[in-house]
Amino acid sequence: MSGPTEHFDRSQHGHLVIVGGHEDRENSKQILSRFVQLCGGAQATIAVITAASRVPDVMWERYDTVFRDIGVREVVRVDLPDRATANDADLAARVRACDGIWMTGGDQKRLLAMIGGTLLDEAMHRALKESGACIGGTSAGASAMCGHMLADGKADLLPEKGSVSLGAGLGFVQRVVIDQHFSERHRLARLLTVVAQNPYLLGIGIDEDTALVVERGVGIEVIGAGSVTVVDGRTMISNVADIPAGGTPQLIDVRLHLLPTGSSFALPEEIHHPHQLPPDATRDTPAALTDFVRNVTKRNPLS
Amino acid sequence: MSGPTEHFDRSQHGHLVIVGGHEDRENSKQILSRFVQLCGGAQATIAVITAASRVPDVMWERYDTVFRDIGVREVVRVDLPDRATANDADLAARVRACDGIWMTGGDQKRLLAMIGGTLLDEAMHRALKESGACIGGTSAGASAMCGHMLADGKADLLPEKGSVSLGAGLGFVQRVVIDQHFSERHRLARLLTVVAQNPYLLGIGIDEDTALVVERGVGIEVIGAGSVTVVDGRTMISNVADIPAGGTPQLIDVRLHLLPTGSSFALPEEIHHPHQLPPDATRDTPAALTDFVRNVTKRNPLS
Repeated sequence: MSGPTEHFDRSQHGHLVIVGGHEDRENSKQILSRFVQLCGGAQATIAVITAASRVPDVMWERYDTVFRDIGVREVVRVDLPDRATANDADLAARVRACDGIWMTGGDQKRLLAMIGGTLLDEAMHRALKESGACIGGTSAGASAMCGHMLADGKADLLPEKGSVSLGAGLGFVQRVVIDQHFSERHRLARLLTVVAQNPYLLGIGIDEDTALVVERGVGIEVIGAGSVTVVDGRTMISNVADIPAGGTPQLIDVRLHLLPTGSSFALPEEIHHPHQLPPDATRDTPAALTDFVRNVTKRNPLS
Repeated sequence: MSGPTEHFDRSQHGHLVIVGGHEDRENSKQILSRFVQLCGGAQATIAVITAASRVPDVMWERYDTVFRDIGVREVVRVDLPDRATANDADLAARVRACDGIWMTGGDQKRLLAMIGGTLLDEAMHRALKESGACIGGTSAGASAMCGHMLADGKADLLPEKGSVSLGAGLGFVQRVVIDQHFSERHRLARLLTVVAQNPYLLGIGIDEDTALVVERGVGIEVIGAGSVTVVDGRTMISNVADIPAGGTPQLIDVRLHLLPTGSSFALPEEIHHPHQLPPDATRDTPAALTDFVRNVTKRNPLS
């Protein structure tokens, strides 16, 4: 490694690059370049998992092209014609050895049906947690990162009890739920539905061409064109348990945070340590955001 | 007066019916019927102010028809060809004597340019505050009710510094800003812009065919098809003062309340008193909402 990543001991950390879909692949390629940088740069070996998509060939070509444009020499196709392949020990070992793993868009339910609980799933966690690999995902690949994954949901004008369903995701981050294409598809109401019914989870909405970059144990950063919205319902007062399905819940005292591109927050104990996040960005983490930052950067153990 | 309003001493209170536009005028007419009821029912004299609209004849016919459908016998057209007419003492005296005053949609800037600071404006305040008349307004007529009126603003995907401008409104409610067509036109970002730049104001977003009914000094109720969203930025941490115009502000710890139809809250000291709000609805006002209810129900004096 060279350049800005020189001082960085990747094995101590591991990053997540959680992208709200439609990241730029033609012009600045800001988000994908950052992903590559966090994988270790041109020398990195990056695996591309296309299993969320029904057009995996298109997805493979798309990301093989752009990662090579950025200068990556080793881009590895993880072809998953079926779930059995995701339990292939050789394939899992190859992914375990990668510096970066990218999950394309498609349908997060399809992705989880293919890889959830497989050797490949375990290999991804080991790469992140034991070797400090970088895990990136866009759209469906972003939603799939949580333990509690937004599986289906209407994006109506108002929150609606029973209109959203969760599934078991890959669990790189816990106690959050991630939605993507957030502002563009007006998904606040659906994220509020999730949080109303599951106040245990913090809601994260990521805009298109926008990424929440997580440095495990250290802090977070928002990059790209849009913003990240955080919805915290822990102190909320709601009647959601008492209303019928289809009703709009009353929600009082939901905490909302809007983190535009350029926002970055370190854990309070990490603020004065050298690390990857830009030193010129805001470093003080307001108390209202500390739990969120702690949560999303938590070094969850291998399960 | 008869029926459900029998026990009600209208002179003690005065109501506001603040409607988010497109209230039903064909079927249940729930909101307009409630407005008429709060004016005193069929015996009431209701003035219709069409000055917000560039098609006042259409507006007059629309509301004359629907109020008569509901059973009102005296509907008074307030025709304002120019601002001088709004300073006509006879016209002001006639409006002062009305039981209800309705403001149609159109452009709130036009409405204020025509009546702001005139004898008609004063007559409306006297009718409300001295005689307990009911003031209703829809769309532009709703926005015009605040002291700080949302005059212009882009409804973009994200808040944008400098994209919203306020003007001086009629001031029936103070320390709030009201937006309408709220969920339908995805106006949360623009309301957040207002609150980010003006945290002194609580933001109120009212959906179409939805009304915030205010009983001065007593409490509030939400009726109709949608919800009322309240945005409270008083404890917010924001960089809005430091970013350039056009930038997206970082907003941390905005309090958001979603009040669907059927929500009602009384001031704590009014909870056990008899009043107009439905006795079967939620009466406890959570602490997080108390300031909002106190604010919006405040019996502001004649200025």
